[in-house]
Amino acid sequence: MTVPLDLPRLSVHDLLCTSALSPTDLEHVFATSRALKAARTVHTEVLRHKRLAMIFEKDSLRTRFTFDIGMQDLGGSAVFMDHRDARLGSRESVKDMAKNLERWVHGIVARTFKHKALEELAQHAGIPVINGLSDFVHPCQALADFFTLTEKWGQLRGRTLCYVGDGNNTCHALIHTAVKLGVHIRVCSPEGYEPNARVVNEAMRTAQEHGSEVTILNDPDAAAEGVDAIYTDVWASMGQEDEIEERNGIFAAYQVDEEMLARARPGALFMHCLPAHRGWEVTQEVMDGPQSVVYDIAENRLHVQKAVMALLMR
Amino acid sequence: MTVPLDLPRLSVHDLLCTSALSPTDLEHVFATSRALKAARTVHTEVLRHKRLAMIFEKDSLRTRFTFDIGMQDLGGSAVFMDHRDARLGSRESVKDMAKNLERWVHGIVARTFKHKALEELAQHAGIPVINGLSDFVHPCQALADFFTLTEKWGQLRGRTLCYVGDGNNTCHALIHTAVKLGVHIRVCSPEGYEPNARVVNEAMRTAQEHGSEVTILNDPDAAAEGVDAIYTDVWASMGQEDEIEERNGIFAAYQVDEEMLARARPGALFMHCLPAHRGWEVTQEVMDGPQSVVYDIAENRLHVQKAVMALLMR
Amino acid sequence: MTVPLDLPRLSVHDLLCTSALSPTDLEHVFATSRALKAARTVHTEVLRHKRLAMIFEKDSLRTRFTFDIGMQDLGGSAVFMDHRDARLGSRESVKDMAKNLERWVHGIVARTFKHKALEELAQHAGIPVINGLSDFVHPCQALADFFTLTEKWGQLRGRTLCYVGDGNNTCHALIHTAVKLGVHIRVCSPEGYEPNARVVNEAMRTAQEHGSEVTILNDPDAAAEGVDAIYTDVWASMGQEDEIEERNGIFAAYQVDEEMLARARPGALFMHCLPAHRGWEVTQEVMDGPQSVVYDIAENRLHVQKAVMALLMR
Repeated sequence: MTVPLDLPRLSVHDLLCTSALSPTDLEHVFATSRALKAARTVHTEVLRHKRLAMIFEKDSLRTRFTFDIGMQDLGGSAVFMDHRDARLGSRESVKDMAKNLERWVHGIVARTFKHKALEELAQHAGIPVINGLSDFVHPCQALADFFTLTEKWGQLRGRTLCYVGDGNNTCHALIHTAVKLGVHIRVCSPEGYEPNARVVNEAMRTAQEHGSEVTILNDPDAAAEGVDAIYTDVWASMGQEDEIEERNGIFAAYQVDEEMLARARPGALFMHCLPAHRGWEVTQEVMDGPQSVVYDIAENRLHVQKAVMALLMR
Repeated sequence: MTVPLDLPRLSVHDLLCTSALSPTDLEHVFATSRALKAARTVHTEVLRHKRLAMIFEKDSLRTRFTFDIGMQDLGGSAVFMDHRDARLGSRESVKDMAKNLERWVHGIVARTFKHKALEELAQHAGIPVINGLSDFVHPCQALADFFTLTEKWGQLRGRTLCYVGDGNNTCHALIHTAVKLGVHIRVCSPEGYEPNARVVNEAMRTAQEHGSEVTILNDPDAAAEGVDAIYTDVWASMGQEDEIEERNGIFAAYQVDEEMLARARPGALFMHCLPAHRGWEVTQEVMDGPQSVVYDIAENRLHVQKAVMALLMR
Repeated sequence: MTVPLDLPRLSVHDLLCTSALSPTDLEHVFATSRALKAARTVHTEVLRHKRLAMIFEKDSLRTRFTFDIGMQDLGGSAVFMDHRDARLGSRESVKDMAKNLERWVHGIVARTFKHKALEELAQHAGIPVINGLSDFVHPCQALADFFTLTEKWGQLRGRTLCYVGDGNNTCHALIHTAVKLGVHIRVCSPEGYEPNARVVNEAMRTAQEHGSEVTILNDPDAAAEGVDAIYTDVWASMGQEDEIEERNGIFAAYQVDEEMLARARPGALFMHCLPAHRGWEVTQEVMDGPQSVVYDIAENRLHVQKAVMALLMR
């Protein structure tokens, strides 16, 4: 059942950070995601006989399932390596791992603590390397986020997304992607937990080219005012378990609740990359309320990652 | 190679406990198992493009291999998530896990400590949830057990199965299934280790409808008298490792040995769900003797679970 | 896309040690490897509907990926069981594991601490058992090593391979395989770390039949003199982590560096089974230099193991 799929060429070889994607690349990813989502079991020749290595230093539900299933859907297969008991590079240099894997597989998705490990993999492997979450950035998540918004809103340009919480990898990916798409991004974090200054500065420059704005603020009352969507994430990411108590105190005022959501535009969407902790970064009412699109985003992880793999690995 | 397979509809959406299956459901499962066993590599279109999530809190050999291979045999695939280091619900609510998985896969098999976690999964997931062993009941095992008996005996009605040992999840599944099939079930456990009273009471009521009998006793000498098959299981299940020594003392008189087997009907079968500990719950002579059908049962795990998946997930 | 592949019959049922393979078996493996490598995605009917059980007590990158992908390439599939937290036989007897697996799968590859566990698996399982590394021998590695040499050299007979370092499982496999192929093998280890005397004695007898020579020596300066290839491995294998410091001292003079390589024949190859520790058993200059074929060997793990599986499991 060979169904041709229009697979344009991306300007990148790997997906380490969405900052490297052009607006056209993003359009290609979204168009391909749409086509693959519309006919999930049809395009089984796209990555026929292709193999994906999945190497994960951290727990994962969404990234784990969607990449593996995505490869199967496209006619290929994945091999998952649980790497939670050691960092990449500890048993064997990252270079050697890359130089081995490229001989057997056609792509690598890795979830690492250090973004550097991903960059090293990509440097040495002649095959595409996809970031399945690093301490720095979570590009597949941002692609799923904005693809979901295209489904909900149609046009993205001129909309405003407000991210409330820790200026973490998810936040960085949102900033980098928003500015390329002409989406205004407002980030509201407690002092000292703002997103990386380099990310913000780079994004501000990019924003100017694309007519979008980046705003960083600390006041949670002001943050949601009139925005089209509010996004949050856990207050302590994987690896920060010992800071949980401290962070819970610091972030308490940044909880997304119905009051905050009411300050946004009527019908504004609630977004979360999951896992979510109801009662902490988001109330149950908002998480499970009618404006929440969290499961749609989770579903779209599958479709956008299939698109990314199809475009990079075909 | 599409070979049509008659796939009737079951009266259930999930397989959490065999108590929910009707006698007709059981007939359907056995008939489908028989067809799939007779032509293992033929029905590869039944679950084509279908995906199974396997989430296991405990070790597993049989359940692990047979579900994964079963999906492959039927043309689909499985993604296995080793969840031994945390209980379901600890990283993310069971509800969210269910609401995520249902977006990507077509069925879930979970092995959990708490049966409650399975029930929650099934409550929130719109896709079939299959119990791959919980602290309460082990339905796939019982289906393989009785399917094996249909192969050995033809007609099951009126036969007597004696379970000797801990009144555990395997025992509960046997009781619930036996009564639906018109098989008399005799359970012989040390005092304090009898099967759950609720299971027994419910089964006794069901037994009346189907002409079978449930007998609970403590005397190992009387238990095997004239029965058609003797079944046992380990004395300490996964999670009870610290009780092993105490249990070994308490259960010593409940070992299935040649003397006990001799009290059963001539040619009576010896059954065990495995893993088995020779010298403890069963002697080597019985385990490896001519009346033992333990490996046939293990094989049939594959065929009955393929049937269950085909019937629930097609 | 069925492409016929000439699959001769091997003289063995399992691959536990290359010592059991005849020179003709080795020829068959190499010829099949060559055919499969030349057309990686073509022979997808060879193991169609066949299943492989992968049971690993130790970490693995190469063995893990190449067997799994190899099965996929050949149209079958593998189920990987992470067995790092327990030895085979601890949860269930090796016999029972074998007697279970043979009911569901068509082959087993196991990586074990004890070679004995592999032998037991093979004794009880009616399906082929493949050694994916034991404390005693690493046959798949040696097959990849010598297959790579056939690619580099054409004819192997009369060549000399020098192994420098610990007389470990990799070394044993090289010795056993070399002598069957008419390759002279020179092993240079510190005193007390020489290869197993039984292996050496058996190989010496075999060598006489096939016109090859086995030399065991302790002097690293003499070892490399005029050889066609130098091979080394880590100084402390998995499970010997607590001996690392002591071993680093003992093996210091056995490092493969440019000076040692210069003593070999011009153009001599550097070989390593990986993982490698640059600065310890090999210098960076040699490891990453023009004479190093380490990644070619790693790639060939895939092709030779596909050949082994095709030949044993078809």
